[in-house]
Amino acid sequence: MYAVNIRDHFMIAHSFRGAVFGPAQKLHGATYIVDLEMRRPELDPDNIVVDIGLAGEVLRSTLQELNFRNLDDEAAFAGRNTTTEFMARVIFDRIVARIAKGDLGPHAGGLTQMKVTLHESHVAWADFEGSLPQP
Amino acid sequence: MYAVNIRDHFMIAHSFRGAVFGPAQKLHGATYIVDLEMRRPELDPDNIVVDIGLAGEVLRSTLQELNFRNLDDEAAFAGRNTTTEFMARVIFDRIVARIAKGDLGPHAGGLTQMKVTLHESHVAWADFEGSLPQP
Amino acid sequence: MYAVNIRDHFMIAHSFRGAVFGPAQKLHGATYIVDLEMRRPELDPDNIVVDIGLAGEVLRSTLQELNFRNLDDEAAFAGRNTTTEFMARVIFDRIVARIAKGDLGPHAGGLTQMKVTLHESHVAWADFEGSLPQP
Amino acid sequence: MYAVNIRDHFMIAHSFRGAVFGPAQKLHGATYIVDLEMRRPELDPDNIVVDIGLAGEVLRSTLQELNFRNLDDEAAFAGRNTTTEFMARVIFDRIVARIAKGDLGPHAGGLTQMKVTLHESHVAWADFEGSLPQP
Amino acid sequence: MYAVNIRDHFMIAHSFRGAVFGPAQKLHGATYIVDLEMRRPELDPDNIVVDIGLAGEVLRSTLQELNFRNLDDEAAFAGRNTTTEFMARVIFDRIVARIAKGDLGPHAGGLTQMKVTLHESHVAWADFEGSLPQP
Amino acid sequence: MYAVNIRDHFMIAHSFRGAVFGPAQKLHGATYIVDLEMRRPELDPDNIVVDIGLAGEVLRSTLQELNFRNLDDEAAFAGRNTTTEFMARVIFDRIVARIAKGDLGPHAGGLTQMKVTLHESHVAWADFEGSLPQP
Repeated sequence: MYAVNIRDHFMIAHSFRGAVFGPAQKLHGATYIVDLEMRRPELDPDNIVVDIGLAGEVLRSTLQELNFRNLDDEAAFAGRNTTTEFMARVIFDRIVARIAKGDLGPHAGGLTQMKVTLHESHVAWADFEGSLPQP
Repeated sequence: MYAVNIRDHFMIAHSFRGAVFGPAQKLHGATYIVDLEMRRPELDPDNIVVDIGLAGEVLRSTLQELNFRNLDDEAAFAGRNTTTEFMARVIFDRIVARIAKGDLGPHAGGLTQMKVTLHESHVAWADFEGSLPQP
Repeated sequence: MYAVNIRDHFMIAHSFRGAVFGPAQKLHGATYIVDLEMRRPELDPDNIVVDIGLAGEVLRSTLQELNFRNLDDEAAFAGRNTTTEFMARVIFDRIVARIAKGDLGPHAGGLTQMKVTLHESHVAWADFEGSLPQP
Repeated sequence: MYAVNIRDHFMIAHSFRGAVFGPAQKLHGATYIVDLEMRRPELDPDNIVVDIGLAGEVLRSTLQELNFRNLDDEAAFAGRNTTTEFMARVIFDRIVARIAKGDLGPHAGGLTQMKVTLHESHVAWADFEGSLPQP
Repeated sequence: MYAVNIRDHFMIAHSFRGAVFGPAQKLHGATYIVDLEMRRPELDPDNIVVDIGLAGEVLRSTLQELNFRNLDDEAAFAGRNTTTEFMARVIFDRIVARIAKGDLGPHAGGLTQMKVTLHESHVAWADFEGSLPQP
Repeated sequence: MYAVNIRDHFMIAHSFRGAVFGPAQKLHGATYIVDLEMRRPELDPDNIVVDIGLAGEVLRSTLQELNFRNLDDEAAFAGRNTTTEFMARVIFDRIVARIAKGDLGPHAGGLTQMKVTLHESHVAWADFEGSLPQP
């Protein structure tokens, strides 16, 4: 199994609801350093997992939809705690949709698995990984 | 599958027995930077993998039992080489016991897999991973 | 010249005023990973630059005054852009005050220089450094 | 499952063929920081995954065959794009051959899985992982 | 003294002349991860060291002039070994010229010192630092 | 001013004397990741700060004198606390002696400053820096 991984980041404000979050129930924020990993069992005709230029643009534009936002104001997350693990899933799903639209090029159908990791500090991170829909 | 990961560290002295260890048969020591990763297929009602505050306390207190020790003097490891990979397993097992005691809170039963990684330098690390007992 | 450096972090929300900040004029947030470096020309009688236990507590409590806050609501920063470089200076000044109060122990008078670095992502950081008042 | 991981690096020149590579079609180069991970379900009699001294020598000598080369001139890669993911596979296969020759010692037959990761920058890396032939 | 630092990278091929370089006399290549640090004693009216958006563009375009090149073919470096430390100086000088042209904005005249660091691997890096011409 | 930096590591056991060290008064140990930085105002005739091959050998052999040792048993440190900052100075002085012996080659006389940093964990490090004796 082959994989490629690219890194980018975004910066948001948010707050949490629930006693488990302690002082993080107050409005605060985070820098999320994001690792996008894509996997496939065989390389494509160019000997690559994915067009890394396109993948970088898809990751960047996906994160721009969230960057410099207060997630408490985003309708898409109403009533949900925008935890690191939850946001990893949100980004995973949005990139799945971009692949389905063809934004990663004609050979991206060969991708079988993906993982999105969000680093919130030097001592804490979270990820969501799953299989990709097969064409 | 979701995961969260937290990092801490401990510092110990030890020595190894066996020609394979070369000069590391002498009493020396190590800083181990520890990554604790916990996985589950679905988030809990707070939208989290685990209460990261509790997880940090469990990791810290587990490492405190080892920190600033000479592992050659610990009865628990008598007759065993306290290699990095072996210590990863020791810490894995001790945290499994803490989960069983309920120290990670009421929703920790949803955790299904765990990995403990010990970094011994910038060029070498080891881990143990396995499934968690299901309640 | 000797130095010791310790690392911790805090997470805040804020917004900026001024066209130079572009989309960062909106309410967003950041994780700041903080490095506190202290320097002195000679070691103290214990062969150390500073009591690293006390230094860690002073850094932690200084950052706790800022952690999980919306800096736009803090009276101390009214009318100021809480940029990374400005916050490095704020933390520098607060730690200088703690040293003056004796919170770093009886030998901290030997410290001559200090630097506070705030990492806002894997690709951007800022610092403030300066001399320490001599007793 | 246990794992150990060791890190080394090599530096090469190469060029790519295919519009997908854009300006990387020109002769350029890369530093590849290489992580070699080896996995097995049980430790060997010395309480280790593998003799880390031997593993380091095998990794180093495998990378020396590539270090300070122009990969465009290597007969082994004629007609192939020497992408990061492809080179991860090349190194994987060469280390499999070294294990088969016995270069990792008598207990290396217990290794069941291996992963080779090549970091080409602070924002991009690739890996190949697979099962190891069982003796 | 305040500083800001931003990071980017470029990838090149080159060779060296001189017995001191050993096998690196052959055509090979490198990824250089570049840190650009800019310093000034007082912040500008926006409470910043420099417009980090402009600084990022200046760094990126400066590195693009070198990215995906064989430095042995560049007229600017004819007869010179393009070592890591030499390339740090080249980039330093090119950014000084960009500041002189006004590409870092109207307040960049307050910058007094600059450092350019090139990381060639996880175990080796080099830098050039110096004072900036005062307007 | 130019600089080059190389990284290596060593692993030791030791204990401290003095209430300020708390639980670290017990026998424990550390991995020290060591950065050796050498500076000079002008490059040598090969366009380098120092022969990085020789510098790597000098650093490695200097650390080998300490690696896999219990520092409490070393006559050279009798009656001294082998703190991180103190060990940075020890290594600094030993490398100064190696330069004086000519082990860094004929052009090393142009080196003017040096810094030795010891990282004891991901959250703590110390360094000693100073001028080099001029020939």
